[in-house]
Amino acid sequence: MATEAIGIDRARSTERIERDIETLAGPDYTRSDQAIRRYAYTPEYRATLDYFVAALGEIGFEISYDPVGTLVARNRPKGERVFGVGSHCDSNRNGGKYDGTMGVVTALEVCRLSADLDLDLPLQLVSFLEEEGSGFGQMLLGSRITAQRVTEEELREEFRAIDDGRSFWEHAEEAGYEPARWRESLSILDDLTGWIELHIEQARVLQDTGNRIGVVNAIAGYIHADVHVQGRADHAGATPMDFRLDVGPVAAEVILEVERLAREAGDGTVGTVGEIEFEPGIINVVPGRARLSLDTRGVVEEGFRSVARGVESFAAQAAEARGLTATYRQRQTLPVTPMDDRIVAALEEAARESGEPFMTMPSGAAHDTMSVAHHVPTAMVFVPCVDGISHAPEEDADPADAALAAEIILNAIRSLQAG
Amino acid sequence: MATEAIGIDRARSTERIERDIETLAGPDYTRSDQAIRRYAYTPEYRATLDYFVAALGEIGFEISYDPVGTLVARNRPKGERVFGVGSHCDSNRNGGKYDGTMGVVTALEVCRLSADLDLDLPLQLVSFLEEEGSGFGQMLLGSRITAQRVTEEELREEFRAIDDGRSFWEHAEEAGYEPARWRESLSILDDLTGWIELHIEQARVLQDTGNRIGVVNAIAGYIHADVHVQGRADHAGATPMDFRLDVGPVAAEVILEVERLAREAGDGTVGTVGEIEFEPGIINVVPGRARLSLDTRGVVEEGFRSVARGVESFAAQAAEARGLTATYRQRQTLPVTPMDDRIVAALEEAARESGEPFMTMPSGAAHDTMSVAHHVPTAMVFVPCVDGISHAPEEDADPADAALAAEIILNAIRSLQAG
Repeated sequence: MATEAIGIDRARSTERIERDIETLAGPDYTRSDQAIRRYAYTPEYRATLDYFVAALGEIGFEISYDPVGTLVARNRPKGERVFGVGSHCDSNRNGGKYDGTMGVVTALEVCRLSADLDLDLPLQLVSFLEEEGSGFGQMLLGSRITAQRVTEEELREEFRAIDDGRSFWEHAEEAGYEPARWRESLSILDDLTGWIELHIEQARVLQDTGNRIGVVNAIAGYIHADVHVQGRADHAGATPMDFRLDVGPVAAEVILEVERLAREAGDGTVGTVGEIEFEPGIINVVPGRARLSLDTRGVVEEGFRSVARGVESFAAQAAEARGLTATYRQRQTLPVTPMDDRIVAALEEAARESGEPFMTMPSGAAHDTMSVAHHVPTAMVFVPCVDGISHAPEEDADPADAALAAEIILNAIRSLQAG
Repeated sequence: MATEAIGIDRARSTERIERDIETLAGPDYTRSDQAIRRYAYTPEYRATLDYFVAALGEIGFEISYDPVGTLVARNRPKGERVFGVGSHCDSNRNGGKYDGTMGVVTALEVCRLSADLDLDLPLQLVSFLEEEGSGFGQMLLGSRITAQRVTEEELREEFRAIDDGRSFWEHAEEAGYEPARWRESLSILDDLTGWIELHIEQARVLQDTGNRIGVVNAIAGYIHADVHVQGRADHAGATPMDFRLDVGPVAAEVILEVERLAREAGDGTVGTVGEIEFEPGIINVVPGRARLSLDTRGVVEEGFRSVARGVESFAAQAAEARGLTATYRQRQTLPVTPMDDRIVAALEEAARESGEPFMTMPSGAAHDTMSVAHHVPTAMVFVPCVDGISHAPEEDADPADAALAAEIILNAIRSLQAG
């Protein structure tokens, strides 16, 4: 059963979103005067949560926290069904105003619109702790705790603060939370009928295709690995070409093969060599060892897995052909996270009704929604960011796009509630 | 006019050379207990010079120093014609026993043999200061001062100690030398009728071809340069293959082209990419900048110069083909240093008469002899080093090969004197 889409006052929403973002870019909310830098258990992070607490309090939301500090705000009592919106409000150590924060601000705007327009949708806003890993070097930490994708040993001992080396556990306790009850964090998903997260795209696809909205239908899975090539270091002047076991040309062939395999796999599969090291790394020495990183992702599981397999066997063959050896070591992998068809369809329909250009697309980057998706039907909405730049002070995005996204999310939730 | 070759007591020479080298590998002669580490104006370097001074004094050589500390020992008064032998006795910071030192030790053995056998050849031994650059970061520094290939500004201001940042000039004065008279260093070449330097090969050609002696007929010229590739850093997950300006594949194509161009140039031309850097150099970011070093050398000037030209134009084209840019910047270059035909022929003849396997070959590495060659007829003799390893504590060579070289050098000088 379709509901008629509501048109909001986009100019007013744009203004409110811009005000929120600019306020949270002020000196009280960042530990750096060069960039946005905020992370768990710092005064600046606390101030940021307090800003949202105050704004949500104004529209009658009740505030609570999970046992480590993830913010939960609801306009229905615990036990009643609600629809989830949110993101994270921590930043990279050298970050910008929009990554994460614009998602929480837009979720807040959805809550405000529901109140303003007397829709009284049952909503729960969540701002997950520590998505970027700036505090403890662990990406998606808050949402992984919620999804029980960590171990107690990690929380007590292994995850340590970048600043002082003390454990996550100790810091969480010091901040007034109860990390010993971390398993109860999962319950913040209990009442959710669905979940939508807004995020800046972090790439140039929306900008370069002229779309203002991306409806995310899957979050890419990935494999991170290293290829090590072993040859022999020799004097670059004294060693004739035929006497060399130079790792350079093998490394070069692997880089080109990563690109070829990713294109061959299709379906948006990508492959990247972002790190490379030659040893000893001196201009006048033939390199005797090389290490290359591999990052391959995609929303089709077989696509990126075939790239990784292809790189492993190609590297071994390319090395052997020149009398060298190569080894492949996987660092980590996550499967594809599909989004919920019904929520995706509701967002597409609401986007269509907004009259603005949008596209359906995968997310290549990882997001907190990956942690939520195994428990709750989810989808995401992307807005463009200038030149795809993120994780840098130059990060730029348009509050008007976020206001449009708020309208689309609001209408999608209405339609899902009605359906 | 040919002279009959003299056979020496190789076993005794081997023993003396081994004793010299092992003594100079002892704790008084190195600043590291892991490696040989000695450089200008340190107590360990002074002790090494004193060892040679004592040994040369025993056979009646008179000792002097050039104005910065290069050791000169002669068995004829200044003004009389002499034949030059020598090398350097400083080492890499993490060096081995043989590089340089075996050349001075073998030159000493030639002087000893001339005395033992009552040949009384007119000889001048030189141990050049600071060949490796461990003290002041400047390769061939002592011999470049002799050859006037430095400026006073460099000596006074620019060349600074790696250890304390103070100038070469200040250190030289503190050690009791007179750097203000550096231009007089050239006069140490005044009386030379010729010059022969022995050095370990620093590659595997002699070992792998089963030769004990290499007669060097040219020292390679070289070009050192950097290729910079400019693309765009993007999120490695979120950026589709067609939206990238990835510097990795361009860098890879350049590496393969360096190898292809060097092989195509032939005549022993070599090309090496020893250094590579991607920026930002993170596994999940498409690299936006790359730098690659180029080292190309050869004894045919057009050979290595064609590699450098080829790399410059290829990099620009390969980058442009992908919408990127590349720039090429030369760091430094030196032309080929040909050796003197007559000295090379005398060494070849003496090597032939030794009955041991030898070959005539170029030197890919740079040596002090490059500084001498523009003023005096020169050649060099190489002996094998195990697996081509040099500039490392694992460096290994056979004193028996050096003893054979001493016999060959002695006979070559005799024949040249007679001729």
